Amino acid sequence: MTAPGAPASGEDSLIARYFKPLATDPGAFGLTDDAAVLKALGDDIVVTTDAIVEGVHFLSDDPPQTIAKKALRVNLSDLAAKGATPAGFVLTLALRKVDEIWLAAFARGLGEDTSAFNCPLLGGDTVSTPGPLMVSVTAFGRVAPDKMVHRSGAKPGDHVVVTGTIGDAALGLDILRNGRVATVLANDIASRDMLVGRYRVPEPRNALASAIGAHAHAAMDVSDGLAGDLAKLCAASAVSAAIELAAIPLSKAASAALTAGAVALSEIVSGGDDYEILCTVTPDAFKSFAEAAGRAGVAVSRIGSIIAGKAAPKFLDAKRTELALTRTSFSHF
Amino acid sequence: MTAPGAPASGEDSLIARYFKPLATDPGAFGLTDDAAVLKALGDDIVVTTDAIVEGVHFLSDDPPQTIAKKALRVNLSDLAAKGATPAGFVLTLALRKVDEIWLAAFARGLGEDTSAFNCPLLGGDTVSTPGPLMVSVTAFGRVAPDKMVHRSGAKPGDHVVVTGTIGDAALGLDILRNGRVATVLANDIASRDMLVGRYRVPEPRNALASAIGAHAHAAMDVSDGLAGDLAKLCAASAVSAAIELAAIPLSKAASAALTAGAVALSEIVSGGDDYEILCTVTPDAFKSFAEAAGRAGVAVSRIGSIIAGKAAPKFLDAKRTELALTRTSFSHF
Repeated sequence: MTAPGAPASGEDSLIARYFKPLATDPGAFGLTDDAAVLKALGDDIVVTTDAIVEGVHFLSDDPPQTIAKKALRVNLSDLAAKGATPAGFVLTLALRKVDEIWLAAFARGLGEDTSAFNCPLLGGDTVSTPGPLMVSVTAFGRVAPDKMVHRSGAKPGDHVVVTGTIGDAALGLDILRNGRVATVLANDIASRDMLVGRYRVPEPRNALASAIGAHAHAAMDVSDGLAGDLAKLCAASAVSAAIELAAIPLSKAASAALTAGAVALSEIVSGGDDYEILCTVTPDAFKSFAEAAGRAGVAVSRIGSIIAGKAAPKFLDAKRTELALTRTSFSHF
Repeated sequence: MTAPGAPASGEDSLIARYFKPLATDPGAFGLTDDAAVLKALGDDIVVTTDAIVEGVHFLSDDPPQTIAKKALRVNLSDLAAKGATPAGFVLTLALRKVDEIWLAAFARGLGEDTSAFNCPLLGGDTVSTPGPLMVSVTAFGRVAPDKMVHRSGAKPGDHVVVTGTIGDAALGLDILRNGRVATVLANDIASRDMLVGRYRVPEPRNALASAIGAHAHAAMDVSDGLAGDLAKLCAASAVSAAIELAAIPLSKAASAALTAGAVALSEIVSGGDDYEILCTVTPDAFKSFAEAAGRAGVAVSRIGSIIAGKAAPKFLDAKRTELALTRTSFSHF
């Protein structure tokens, strides 16, 4: 991704116009070179990469601003879960054609987030594709040497904690597809908008990164469904977990959809796109962690405990009956 | 990109099987976490990203091994031009379906190059797409602090230097499309194979990186055509250039195609996909640079000089007549 040469190609001048303002880091060289420089400043560089595809991770008629924000935020969410501070990102944009109105809105949305999360654009590549739009982001964070928080540190006895509320994004997608949730919430525009917003623009919990680094034994973001991602965390840590279904934090809108029978609890715990943080914290550390979360303005809920064993995590109702899950996570294949 | 959890999704187990062996850096955590750690070791991290798309940068029936190698090598080429030593890369793979035979061959080709170029896989993402296959790579290199070689350092009087030979890849693409070059070289299988190979599997000049860092005023890789890329380098450096057409290094096959009239010289200097290095070196430093290149096994040719001014670079024949270029570089839009 480069600024205009002489003669500038169409791609170069577009990029200069729309993306150069987002490249505020001196190491981006104003997008005028073939590469960027990232300075570690004595820290470890945490690297994560996630792509979103039209028709798979976002819908064709989603606003360009929200597509841009989602592409960046799904990566910021990974950095937060690893305890890392955002340092910048590179962007690959596969476009069918150059639609300047679309591109201007995309860059505007992206620019709002590069500012809000202090995560400047370092470079990128624009390619043409006859297929669906795709936005691939590789994001970088800084963490003190050897202090990245892993999936694999959970210990029996740890509290299992999640941020925010679970299941909203999956319900939002159902609404966008005119599913049962749309019908049940037909007269509740505010709830519908909130749920759709949760699908389109996740809220990465970067404000919690330092508390996660200080207190969490293990952490990851919930992107493919709570049940499946908890299973991955437990497998990486060689432990199991017991989750209280009643303790899983739900939004009012999700509770209403659940009560009305528009969605099953199993769909909420296996729905994707939450981008909340799942982590484990010792009971002793939980108070300090919760206080730090409060100061960061992030709600945290204890939903269960890590237990010994290698069984799949159990999701238990008030009668200690295990919830049957037909699938534990969202898979694109 | 993660190794299998319990239960492993289809994606996770595929990735574990095919890509985990390529994740030899301790910071990749065996692809079992959400992110990787890259240690700067006191250097600057050079970051570059380039994607290749089926039907645009490679052909549908190209062997999976060569697609994998090309995706990595176009990025390694950028690192070489910046004087950086490869440190690792992340991969985003957008697939229509999981074809294990294809994937195994892709991973095998990629693995050959991660070993050959000492550039381990650090992580990635696999997404499904209904559209063309796309491989996006973000690669990392290390360079001494503030020693990345820029496009912008060329000075009047510098020699303009290129590595290898120019135009072969564009001729290879013409052959794959059954163009005029295929007709002219119909009986010369060895030349056809060489040219097609140059299109499918570029030869990044990483062996030259330290010499570029030590001697070059400015450098970039030639990916979109020599004429256009030289124009970009000159614009970034606020200089112009005079190039001797007779000095541009051509392979025997390209010379034969040129002599037979299958291709014009203007097409050779504006053809894409060379992945050679274009750099500028003072006349005083050229001897040392050429000797270092010789030790690295990389051919270098002086093709002209940087001159003052802001005009587009001139390509001059033996009579000092300027070559007319209908387009200076390849643009996907």
